[in-house]
Amino acid sequence: MTLELPPIRDRNLFNHALTHRSYLNEHHEATQHNERLEFLGDAVLGFLVGELLYKKYPEMSEAQLTRLRSKLVDETQLGKLGQQLGLGKLMRLGRGAQKDKGRENPSLLNDTFEAIIGAYFLDAGIDAVRAYIQPIFIRLAEQIVTTQSKTTKSTFVDSKNQLQQWALAHQGENPVYQIIAEVGPPHAKEFTAQVSIKGVVYGQGKGHRKQEAQKQAAEAALKQLDA
Amino acid sequence: MTLELPPIRDRNLFNHALTHRSYLNEHHEATQHNERLEFLGDAVLGFLVGELLYKKYPEMSEAQLTRLRSKLVDETQLGKLGQQLGLGKLMRLGRGAQKDKGRENPSLLNDTFEAIIGAYFLDAGIDAVRAYIQPIFIRLAEQIVTTQSKTTKSTFVDSKNQLQQWALAHQGENPVYQIIAEVGPPHAKEFTAQVSIKGVVYGQGKGHRKQEAQKQAAEAALKQLDA
Repeated sequence: MTLELPPIRDRNLFNHALTHRSYLNEHHEATQHNERLEFLGDAVLGFLVGELLYKKYPEMSEAQLTRLRSKLVDETQLGKLGQQLGLGKLMRLGRGAQKDKGRENPSLLNDTFEAIIGAYFLDAGIDAVRAYIQPIFIRLAEQIVTTQSKTTKSTFVDSKNQLQQWALAHQGENPVYQIIAEVGPPHAKEFTAQVSIKGVVYGQGKGHRKQEAQKQAAEAALKQLDA
Repeated sequence: MTLELPPIRDRNLFNHALTHRSYLNEHHEATQHNERLEFLGDAVLGFLVGELLYKKYPEMSEAQLTRLRSKLVDETQLGKLGQQLGLGKLMRLGRGAQKDKGRENPSLLNDTFEAIIGAYFLDAGIDAVRAYIQPIFIRLAEQIVTTQSKTTKSTFVDSKNQLQQWALAHQGENPVYQIIAEVGPPHAKEFTAQVSIKGVVYGQGKGHRKQEAQKQAAEAALKQLDA
């Protein structure tokens, strides 16, 4: 996919979005770096990508939408977009930052991409930014969703971790695991684990080891949350 | 300030925004809980509060804007708004959650407030939500900014922490502190500390203890960043 920069009409605003803090020390005619625009662009992107996913994936749970959005707007992803848009060459950097491979730095490319989005929002309004970013992020979302469904096993591995994140964010407490049953002879025991959050049971799971039973319980809880 | 709920025209959407997951088990006529709307409302609020602060405070740095926005949209703050809007009484909760003081729970009130914002956005569009939230959040922002300037000492305490957060987010590395000078007799030494990130010096500070000098250096670095 060939990406094109958004058509920002205000040339000063465009340059402002390209200006890194390191450029100011060496160029006294430049008075503002792009960090405030980066803040604005980050807010705009978070909203528009969230809105897009909400509408495109009516079957996804809040937890799934949150995970997918994080992947779409993380530094690696936005840095890559910045690079594909040719921001590496355009960024206004100080000499130190240039020597330090600043033009290939994902963090700088991410920041500059966000600043460009902030500038385009000021220049043309939210509907123009929506129209610009939609095809880009729909495509990226589809790629991630397809890859994920091929590798569901890997998401299973950290299901306890995922459940903990959800529990802390939404209930302010850690999940509590209990072994509620233990059957069979010593060499072939089967454990049943139960996970609860704030006293409410969210899932149960079985396994030949306690850890495995707990993982299955976490998995069951996540499935229920995604329902 | 008396707060009023946004005028959501679609009654089903309004009820949907009020419906907690716990309500569904006991009311089979209800089919959807409000968590997806909460995701959407959170995205809408993050954008609009960010935009508002960007425009209202042209002198604030990205770091200051980020801190102020976090305070405005955190669970405590949004939970309080939910309570003032009377969402406690309106929320559709299951019996367990009701017994568990769910109607006063800041986390549930926060979630429901976000869901209401998401529903209003779907019902009336972004400009309507902007007009609704602006007076509320301008007032809250002004309160926080006034209180902060009275207690700048408290922000000074964790300046090393703040600088570290900024450095990790923007440069991907921790700040490095060095003692570059030590003058005076043993009982009245004065240390000079210097803080750099990725080899670039961001600030210097002096103090009678090394820790104090480092704090002052961090403070100087933060001031420079805020410039």
